[in-house]
Amino acid sequence: MRVGELSKRSGVPVPTIKYYLREGLLPAGVLTSPNQAHYDEEHLRRLRLVRALIDVGGLSIATVRDVLGVVDSRSPSLHKKLGAVQEAISQPGSAELDPLAVKDVQEFFARQGEDECYDVTKNNVTHMLASAMTAARSVGHDHFSELLDPYLEGLKIIARADLEYIASRGSTDAVVEAMVVGTLIGDAVLKAVRRLAHAQVSREVIGGGSDD
Amino acid sequence: MRVGELSKRSGVPVPTIKYYLREGLLPAGVLTSPNQAHYDEEHLRRLRLVRALIDVGGLSIATVRDVLGVVDSRSPSLHKKLGAVQEAISQPGSAELDPLAVKDVQEFFARQGEDECYDVTKNNVTHMLASAMTAARSVGHDHFSELLDPYLEGLKIIARADLEYIASRGSTDAVVEAMVVGTLIGDAVLKAVRRLAHAQVSREVIGGGSDD
Repeated sequence: MRVGELSKRSGVPVPTIKYYLREGLLPAGVLTSPNQAHYDEEHLRRLRLVRALIDVGGLSIATVRDVLGVVDSRSPSLHKKLGAVQEAISQPGSAELDPLAVKDVQEFFARQGEDECYDVTKNNVTHMLASAMTAARSVGHDHFSELLDPYLEGLKIIARADLEYIASRGSTDAVVEAMVVGTLIGDAVLKAVRRLAHAQVSREVIGGGSDD
Repeated sequence: MRVGELSKRSGVPVPTIKYYLREGLLPAGVLTSPNQAHYDEEHLRRLRLVRALIDVGGLSIATVRDVLGVVDSRSPSLHKKLGAVQEAISQPGSAELDPLAVKDVQEFFARQGEDECYDVTKNNVTHMLASAMTAARSVGHDHFSELLDPYLEGLKIIARADLEYIASRGSTDAVVEAMVVGTLIGDAVLKAVRRLAHAQVSREVIGGGSDD
């Protein structure tokens, strides 16, 4: 297809596509004449992935280039690629960590047998969790970490649905793209559905009361 | 206790406490002399709630006043009070909604037997969910709503842990305060733990690969 059709099918404007080509985020098309290039389905998938990383993930061009490097690396493990992309789209935040909150997180990982893989100084996901526990402690909620284990239990059900959603895609690019969208838009969906779950469970546990 | 001790025990500076008193967010203390007032445990609980709403929830003084009005209302149902506070701390966002995304949400509510309670034009939580589905559709993920039912299933496990966490508090103020903190800081915790759940389930389903 020509660049116009690539734009139409991806929803990305032609000047943006040309910018991605110059920045090396999209491989060049096959020249069919000095001024005309031909693009295929692989370009379309890559373009969708780049758009998801930039528009949904809010990543910079330089970070997108790094992420694509991981996606294109010859590492045999898709699991590892997904983990690296997950890290790239998880912003660690800059707030100072409460050492007790770091301990909360380390103890949680130890309970889960995950203590070797997660280092709060190196791992964005761990840092994100320690930041949230720091916020809880700063408003006097010192036992918030009790919630981590039931949270993980519920989130595993959700993760299985997520994995099913992304694993059925054909190519690595499409799997990674679905993971980025599923993770980031999924966070917002989760936030909203959590409020519905609260309402349902509160009605069940506390009861609606006479005027409900 | 005097205002200095109230400040010390709550972690809220004295000038801020005086500001809340002027704004009517905190009831006046009992005057023990023309220049000295006495505060009790109820003031401390109210102050913690106000701080959670402002610092964690990011609410304006006017919105905090509305929320406190609901908390103090004589409605017999705690469930209803919690729902009203939940709504106040759920920002609807201003993005335009895709009608198909609204339909996704309505169909989900219908499947859950919740279609009467949730109106996308009136309910912040519903609007939040429709916004997220709009974002998914805008990047070509038209079947994202398939995930809503398994999400709710996992989130009910989480909601039960949340309710247990908040329900053991003594007073209504303390229950509402724990709900605000649990909902908003819980969102951030959930986001981080979700990434750990993804890693665990992906290792299980996709497998770590030879170099893992």
